[in-house]
Amino acid sequence: MEKLEALQKKIRERIAGLEYSRQPENLYKPIDYTLNLGGKRLRPALCLLACDMFSDSNDKALETAIGIEIFHNFTLLHDDIMDEAPIRRGKETVYKKWNSNVAILSGDTMMALSYEFVMRAPENVRYEVFKIFNQTAIEVCEGQQYDMDFETQEQVTLEAYIEMIRLKTAVLLAGSLQIGALIGGADKTSAEILYKFGEQIGIAFQLKDDLLDAYSDVEKFGKTTGGDILENKKTFLFLKTLELANSEDRKTLLELYQSVDVDPKDKVSRVKAIFNSYEIQKHTENEIEKYYRLALDSLESLKVAEDRKTELLRFANQLKRREF
Amino acid sequence: MEKLEALQKKIRERIAGLEYSRQPENLYKPIDYTLNLGGKRLRPALCLLACDMFSDSNDKALETAIGIEIFHNFTLLHDDIMDEAPIRRGKETVYKKWNSNVAILSGDTMMALSYEFVMRAPENVRYEVFKIFNQTAIEVCEGQQYDMDFETQEQVTLEAYIEMIRLKTAVLLAGSLQIGALIGGADKTSAEILYKFGEQIGIAFQLKDDLLDAYSDVEKFGKTTGGDILENKKTFLFLKTLELANSEDRKTLLELYQSVDVDPKDKVSRVKAIFNSYEIQKHTENEIEKYYRLALDSLESLKVAEDRKTELLRFANQLKRREF
Repeated sequence: MEKLEALQKKIRERIAGLEYSRQPENLYKPIDYTLNLGGKRLRPALCLLACDMFSDSNDKALETAIGIEIFHNFTLLHDDIMDEAPIRRGKETVYKKWNSNVAILSGDTMMALSYEFVMRAPENVRYEVFKIFNQTAIEVCEGQQYDMDFETQEQVTLEAYIEMIRLKTAVLLAGSLQIGALIGGADKTSAEILYKFGEQIGIAFQLKDDLLDAYSDVEKFGKTTGGDILENKKTFLFLKTLELANSEDRKTLLELYQSVDVDPKDKVSRVKAIFNSYEIQKHTENEIEKYYRLALDSLESLKVAEDRKTELLRFANQLKRREF
Repeated sequence: MEKLEALQKKIRERIAGLEYSRQPENLYKPIDYTLNLGGKRLRPALCLLACDMFSDSNDKALETAIGIEIFHNFTLLHDDIMDEAPIRRGKETVYKKWNSNVAILSGDTMMALSYEFVMRAPENVRYEVFKIFNQTAIEVCEGQQYDMDFETQEQVTLEAYIEMIRLKTAVLLAGSLQIGALIGGADKTSAEILYKFGEQIGIAFQLKDDLLDAYSDVEKFGKTTGGDILENKKTFLFLKTLELANSEDRKTLLELYQSVDVDPKDKVSRVKAIFNSYEIQKHTENEIEKYYRLALDSLESLKVAEDRKTELLRFANQLKRREF
């Protein structure tokens, strides 16, 4: 089996080989720009990896995997308009570099292109692959809507938060694995188990992101910690603290999240002080561990030779141990 | 064969039966709102009509036809953001009633939903239908981009203009017919002929729109004539006049199109005076006639019983004769 890194390289090479010098230029240049911004290419690599678990070649999953990556990049493109994010991967976002009309329309075109690639799946599983992909696409939109809703919603439960990150982040990882498995020849049950694994590891992944945003080593993470706090994001850390805190701390925390005139540095340290007094790092790590364990259980229940599982296991461990 | 009006009714009923009371509400309410704004439901009705030409039942094309209508409405939703259009079919546009983030994301979701419905085509033609639909989707985006490009582009040729309306308007009518025909059991050649017919009648349709915008009876058209002139739209009428005009009139026309301080009524009448002096109505009607003739030639070459063609012929005549 090929290593995850080799699969990521394979994806990068295929993307570099895509030619979008099509007309009109104002439509295809931003697409080309977006696809070449880089990124870990994790979803398509996982799609190939899952294919490898059931087949001796992942070539037949390559085009579909690229479609998944195009879709993922399309969601980032539109999310950046909605979040008014000026920078993505160290470069100007499309909406900033061009304008939002260009970003809307290039995104729409990327979405159509993603279907084109996804549908190059082998005929025997094509419709099945389509259904998983399409359902996932709809769910990712739902996740983004919940995320935006939460910004103005006063009360967000932990349960609703987990459901939001499941939709926004986890289902696409899950779908990538399930689709890759089906293309590789997996039976329906095995493919569904890999979906579950992806969903659980995806939730763990996002929780780790929340944690690292507040507590990572700035040097390694490459961005200022506390970004979520400054944006008043209702992350797991914030919601769990609200749940645990006494009424006084809860009031202070809510006030800090509504404040506009507090010095940023001061705000981050005051919020983190409350987080700390409720041992939020430990609580978040426990939650991550819970989903990580669930993912490992899923993987264990999968009926393939153990040596076919090692790469996915290694990937799960990497995610868990990452510090940035 | 069912009449076009009966098919439009069938589409309206199916759309009324769609339930989008799904969660999150902020995502699905605007979708529901958009799908119930009304409209002629022409594209899906043509899809059913084309199916009828080759089959005794159009039921098997219904879901795909609905998918085409959802796609069409998605493009209007996103176009309204890009064009900053406050009103559509007499009601507030989604971007105005909610906001552009909601309009972007609901639109994305509608695009995914459109694939879901389109892909309910019968298995034997499903992939073929997908390819036509997907190619059409990409071309519609390209058409919208050209349309936006033309706004700031100094020189637009008549040829480029026709290509833009072909992409933006005609290909979806064309694709609807081709897809319906394939689902009805048409051979590849017949389906392609219907595509051609749709493309040609679609161009004629848009040229008629251009003409009516400047010259229709206000009472019947329901909106002020000259809207395109006030928006400085580079329509067929404008571009053809530029081609025909002497240097003085050309200069005046270009100046009027750049003016910001001319009284609207005055502007429309001065532009139309130049149009009139080059008999632009006649020239546009000739161009419409050209595409209408091409469409009829296509229809004539189609190898089906003549009585199967009558509805489509009637449709073409209606389009040509419409006065609003």
